[in-house]
Amino acid sequence: MRDFVYYTPTEVVFGRKSEDSLIPLLNKYGAGKVLIHYGGGSAVRSGLIPKIKAMLDSAGLPWVELGGVVPNPHLSLVYEGIKLCRKERVDFILAVGGGSVIDSAKGIAYGIRYDGDVWDFFDGKAAPKDSAPVGVVLTIPASGSEMSDSCVLTNTEKGQKRGCNSNFCRCRFAIMNPERTLTLPDFQTACGITDIMMHSMERYFTPDAPMPITDSLCEGLMRDVRVTGEKLMADPHNYELRASIMWSGSLAHNGLTGCGVRFDFGTHRLEHELSTMYGVAHGAGLAALWCHWAKYVMAENPSRFRSFAIKVMDIPDGPEAARRGIDAMRDFYRRIGMPTSIPELIGRKATREEIETMADRCSRGGTFTVGAFKVLGRPEMIDIYTKANE
Amino acid sequence: MRDFVYYTPTEVVFGRKSEDSLIPLLNKYGAGKVLIHYGGGSAVRSGLIPKIKAMLDSAGLPWVELGGVVPNPHLSLVYEGIKLCRKERVDFILAVGGGSVIDSAKGIAYGIRYDGDVWDFFDGKAAPKDSAPVGVVLTIPASGSEMSDSCVLTNTEKGQKRGCNSNFCRCRFAIMNPERTLTLPDFQTACGITDIMMHSMERYFTPDAPMPITDSLCEGLMRDVRVTGEKLMADPHNYELRASIMWSGSLAHNGLTGCGVRFDFGTHRLEHELSTMYGVAHGAGLAALWCHWAKYVMAENPSRFRSFAIKVMDIPDGPEAARRGIDAMRDFYRRIGMPTSIPELIGRKATREEIETMADRCSRGGTFTVGAFKVLGRPEMIDIYTKANE
Repeated sequence: MRDFVYYTPTEVVFGRKSEDSLIPLLNKYGAGKVLIHYGGGSAVRSGLIPKIKAMLDSAGLPWVELGGVVPNPHLSLVYEGIKLCRKERVDFILAVGGGSVIDSAKGIAYGIRYDGDVWDFFDGKAAPKDSAPVGVVLTIPASGSEMSDSCVLTNTEKGQKRGCNSNFCRCRFAIMNPERTLTLPDFQTACGITDIMMHSMERYFTPDAPMPITDSLCEGLMRDVRVTGEKLMADPHNYELRASIMWSGSLAHNGLTGCGVRFDFGTHRLEHELSTMYGVAHGAGLAALWCHWAKYVMAENPSRFRSFAIKVMDIPDGPEAARRGIDAMRDFYRRIGMPTSIPELIGRKATREEIETMADRCSRGGTFTVGAFKVLGRPEMIDIYTKANE
Repeated sequence: MRDFVYYTPTEVVFGRKSEDSLIPLLNKYGAGKVLIHYGGGSAVRSGLIPKIKAMLDSAGLPWVELGGVVPNPHLSLVYEGIKLCRKERVDFILAVGGGSVIDSAKGIAYGIRYDGDVWDFFDGKAAPKDSAPVGVVLTIPASGSEMSDSCVLTNTEKGQKRGCNSNFCRCRFAIMNPERTLTLPDFQTACGITDIMMHSMERYFTPDAPMPITDSLCEGLMRDVRVTGEKLMADPHNYELRASIMWSGSLAHNGLTGCGVRFDFGTHRLEHELSTMYGVAHGAGLAALWCHWAKYVMAENPSRFRSFAIKVMDIPDGPEAARRGIDAMRDFYRRIGMPTSIPELIGRKATREEIETMADRCSRGGTFTVGAFKVLGRPEMIDIYTKANE
């Protein structure tokens, strides 16, 4: 196993009454003037944004607001937020929403503590050294961004979706009320389940010898998200199931399930190009790719896929167990309504030109590799996109 | 499930090179003058204390030292530490050792930020509102105190071993180098394995309906500590096994395995009286009591013991599975060299008077109950001690 750092400072307040803690948490973490950052109309229509504004008003905490975050959040809105926060002298960014809103908030928080262009952190020109404080009221379990060190933004001008990881952007607090997720549409719920499982699958398929306790927790989490996730699709108004999936989303991506090993994240990198090219939901893009990635890389370490099949997918051991585990995952995706190929994802086949463009972007013109279980360069990316396009 | 708060801010630096991070961590967390706090001679003889002193000297960080912490750490040394830190204007407490040293350090840290008697926090007269910062270089995996909100001290004058829980005492950082544990004696290793498993068992046996993901992680952790722990007893110089057990020790008690449910901790409370009465090792005391506690309380919810047997102890399902799981744990304790009764623990039977004294202390003269899976008052405590005394 490898040396590691585990650092999850986010104070999580979880449950039906969690929103009552908003003002104490803002005060604890030094909020002065607050930016309330959110996405489309649902956070307003549900009454959550008006409730938060009223709470801040009652507490005498000044605020400004910026809505309009879209899935695969845009750098352009981050720039707008940075400008607004500087003009209004905002001290604290409060994200109200899911992963896109949190990542947009993290981008703003990085930007207002940096003199250059915040995109420098995403295209590798600079590393962040500071961030304004961010807190979150989570409404969509999926990205795990509420506890992770990750922030992913899309630069629409350049056609690039890029991530930046650092501990500076870890949220100070996360308020999670599962009741806010009871009415999520089925498709969004299934995308979330897929993304949550994938965050730990990306850690499980490592080139390293795993640490026993990390392996055990990672297998336990993936298996439970599969079992509980499928129950939830059949019983979407069940608070207990919603709560379990919501908490799994944080644990799947806060680092816990990858302690002591290198992660892969190749499927994530390949998917970012699908999102950029077609504007698809991240979770759906992951489901469309994973089984093809898995069959392509399985020969690197078949016994790892065998363990996955037995311990996560409940496949009996046998000579075909590894492959049957991948097929079982494909069947799981189908049962929860996820696509398992590019044609199912976008309604047609990708063109050869699109595949080459995605591989070019993902490999940064052939100069960059992704993944670790098997390292993927431009030719391997084209192979996997092509398999997923059948 | 219940609403919960999950807050584990401790920055863990884990692995062979982790000690290299000591000075950056001390600087990050605002150390000025440091108290180096430790136990007996092993931390000095191993070269760790001299190494740390040299590192602080090189970095220009002033320090004072206080050794002499004993297992079941004494309030009297905490008083001495508070006096020393006030006189020397110490800013930061660095614990170098295992749970006893960490808890003694936490006691000092509480005390130097409190005008009254620090024991007030342990006998319930006051609740802590602050603490000086504490960091730890861990050398013994067992207590989980490096990430927990717990601190347990023994007041030898009053014959009381009492705990205080608050987020104020969470360590700022924990440096964990498994190499430091390679030469731990077998008995201490086994006590650690027992304590680690028990910290999650105390959360697993809850009166509440468990949260699916919490249950899955808790079962995974307990099962892995059992399997890896038994391998470690046969192969004590194995770095990978030592590392896994060390990291399990932190995860078993940082709150992860009890999210959404009430914990029990009845066995812990009963054991504290054994430690106080006979000066025994905490882990050994837990092993001497648990199976007797389990058989006494099983009727409250036999299906929980059945799940424990199947998922943690690998017992096949069947009408006797619950009881067989308890017996399997007894056999496990025996295989790793732990006592499974009071006579095995102390070398003779406890007297009736001793049992009544322990029950009096544990129940605070019959005014206090412990546990939640089954609430235990003075009569039930006497029953369990008596069963464990056969």
